[in-house]
Amino acid sequence: MEKAMLVFQTDFTYKEGAVCSMYGVVKSVDRSLEIITGTHDLPQYDTWSASYRLYQSMKFWPEGTVFVSVVDPGVGTPRKASVALTDNGYYIVTPDNGSLTHVDAVFGIKEIREIDESVNRLKGKDTEEVSIFHGRDLFGYCAARLASGIIDFEGVGPAYGLNEIVRFPLLEPSAEDGSIKGIFEINDPNFGNLWTNIPLSLFRDKGFEFGDYLNLTIRQNGEIKFDKKLLFHKSFGFEEKGKPMIYNNELMKISLAVSQGSFCDDFNIGYGSDWTVEFKKA
Amino acid sequence: MEKAMLVFQTDFTYKEGAVCSMYGVVKSVDRSLEIITGTHDLPQYDTWSASYRLYQSMKFWPEGTVFVSVVDPGVGTPRKASVALTDNGYYIVTPDNGSLTHVDAVFGIKEIREIDESVNRLKGKDTEEVSIFHGRDLFGYCAARLASGIIDFEGVGPAYGLNEIVRFPLLEPSAEDGSIKGIFEINDPNFGNLWTNIPLSLFRDKGFEFGDYLNLTIRQNGEIKFDKKLLFHKSFGFEEKGKPMIYNNELMKISLAVSQGSFCDDFNIGYGSDWTVEFKKA
Amino acid sequence: MEKAMLVFQTDFTYKEGAVCSMYGVVKSVDRSLEIITGTHDLPQYDTWSASYRLYQSMKFWPEGTVFVSVVDPGVGTPRKASVALTDNGYYIVTPDNGSLTHVDAVFGIKEIREIDESVNRLKGKDTEEVSIFHGRDLFGYCAARLASGIIDFEGVGPAYGLNEIVRFPLLEPSAEDGSIKGIFEINDPNFGNLWTNIPLSLFRDKGFEFGDYLNLTIRQNGEIKFDKKLLFHKSFGFEEKGKPMIYNNELMKISLAVSQGSFCDDFNIGYGSDWTVEFKKA
Repeated sequence: MEKAMLVFQTDFTYKEGAVCSMYGVVKSVDRSLEIITGTHDLPQYDTWSASYRLYQSMKFWPEGTVFVSVVDPGVGTPRKASVALTDNGYYIVTPDNGSLTHVDAVFGIKEIREIDESVNRLKGKDTEEVSIFHGRDLFGYCAARLASGIIDFEGVGPAYGLNEIVRFPLLEPSAEDGSIKGIFEINDPNFGNLWTNIPLSLFRDKGFEFGDYLNLTIRQNGEIKFDKKLLFHKSFGFEEKGKPMIYNNELMKISLAVSQGSFCDDFNIGYGSDWTVEFKKA
Repeated sequence: MEKAMLVFQTDFTYKEGAVCSMYGVVKSVDRSLEIITGTHDLPQYDTWSASYRLYQSMKFWPEGTVFVSVVDPGVGTPRKASVALTDNGYYIVTPDNGSLTHVDAVFGIKEIREIDESVNRLKGKDTEEVSIFHGRDLFGYCAARLASGIIDFEGVGPAYGLNEIVRFPLLEPSAEDGSIKGIFEINDPNFGNLWTNIPLSLFRDKGFEFGDYLNLTIRQNGEIKFDKKLLFHKSFGFEEKGKPMIYNNELMKISLAVSQGSFCDDFNIGYGSDWTVEFKKA
Repeated sequence: MEKAMLVFQTDFTYKEGAVCSMYGVVKSVDRSLEIITGTHDLPQYDTWSASYRLYQSMKFWPEGTVFVSVVDPGVGTPRKASVALTDNGYYIVTPDNGSLTHVDAVFGIKEIREIDESVNRLKGKDTEEVSIFHGRDLFGYCAARLASGIIDFEGVGPAYGLNEIVRFPLLEPSAEDGSIKGIFEINDPNFGNLWTNIPLSLFRDKGFEFGDYLNLTIRQNGEIKFDKKLLFHKSFGFEEKGKPMIYNNELMKISLAVSQGSFCDDFNIGYGSDWTVEFKKA
């Protein structure tokens, strides 16, 4: 049977030797394992981003792929080190610190197990007393054993209740009287786009169509930070370079961009539950 | 037959989940395909850099390698999504937006085809109405099918005229009366070096040799921005740390560096057709 | 026999086409070679960091792995281009410019050979007169030939004396009268932690235990830059977010962190032999 691929996402960056050490451990468990760098540039300590990025990319991988997500501000403390099996057949090896929130909400988690450190932690190489690098000593090592077939899912450690999984609260968008309200769930820190929690389908239900102009109001803690009529269209190239616009993002969520620019930077807008958005027909 | 490797270059960065999603699509087409990260750090929307970097690295890869280049400010608009076959036997999957300029000029393009979206676009996974991520839904997916042998080059879609390829103008260097003139075509944004369009061979023709001191004048739109006598030598270590110098770069083009420093930053010099350089014997 | 893996670390970044060209050369030597990106984000020209990062990650890889380390400010000058075989069975392909210091001191070097450019340098592709990119033309190419089995270790070139290896001076920590003194050897530039040269074992010998409060004095060239009582504990989560603390790092060395913050930035502290640290019982 073909061994599962390992897809890593962390906030380690490549500025020092952490990624290299972690990948070495994987290859020392089983030379034939295939390692994919999802990203090592997640925002530091940002378990919300870890959760969102897992949700964003997971379904595009073959079933059975093992994701290793290490954004772990609580490393070495009693937070659980876990492996989740999702309803759609993926494994996620991660600290149970909120990183499973979106995958759980969107795809569902079937079973979760706490990693048994007595079995699935790296031994030797002067690592036994190290408490601060579970990416190398625990998550990477355990994931490699799972992907390689040295252990099966039961071999990870004891199962625990799905209700014990640490979850962030998720807010739902709402619609009334020709107005649709939501929040910015996250941004695209590269292109400076902002992604709301409003699905395209809700826009459709309310009769908002590509090519329409919509009034957009952005508030931070109730205070208006942006209030303008914007084009809603399929892609960036339909608006002039440098102009803000509304579009449907790669996850079918209503989003904001500046054509070949940065909405975040140009208008100084952030994301999180204190940032609300409201769309109305112009 | 061995399947072709896929070499990716984009301006996505690893700051969010785009690369991970794109690579997942490739692996879902054919688990056995080998993905190489050329770079995901190209300057944003900079199709000129995309073109130059393809030219810079392509010939070092085995013939038949499939390059996927996604710097795509016009995504979702009617710009063509294409696969080019070069005269020296490589495939390039890219928006036809100028990214083929240098490869075409230096190595030649034998044939180009527009990707047939009805066949070679990802289906399902809630992607049909997404217009803004062709790296994932079109270029990555189509390239994987080509590299895997699921389609042959004809299977990409209809061929179109080589004269229709979008090309940037390229400027040629000139020499007269002991002076050689050119432009800065691009920089090395890491080490702060500047690369001219003047080949070493032209320096040789005019009798400029390693070890010579040359007068260098840099103008921006005609205005002098730098005017100094500099050492022309084989490598950085021949000049003192912190001192500017002239050298022959990895593509056999005359270039400027500061030994263990940054020419761009130290002298505030950029690149493009408005920046001209002139070399004379000192 | 299985071919060795190639693990690369450089200061090239991915901002231009250097990594892609270098990897292409490897794959053109032998398509089946496995390339691992250790890092391309080492600090520019910083051979000390190159040395430290090799030491940090090497032992976690399978024996026989070939490391290619290219931080090479002296490229093109007479500094030696070498391949070292370590006492614990790894190969390191690198300019002999100090990059072998830590591996030599910690694990030992068994034999070192200078790369014979007449045999182990890339030919053709217009590279013969390029003096500034040995990562592509020499180190990458030679490493690929070695890993592939085209040459054995003797085939690299002539051996030279171990005493000729370029080494940085390494300073040892000291302990007396309940005080332990050392230096900051390096930082973690991502999380802003500082790593001393003091092993946990020395703390233990002097009766410093996890959970203790210790007085820490940091001096730069003798001048006090930081002087505070700090918690010494197993991991970051034992201190409040934003508070500085002492911990045992992944290499069993005493280190400093700010919980979910940056010690380097918050207190403006650097590393190197001019930065001394002194710990005393509080």
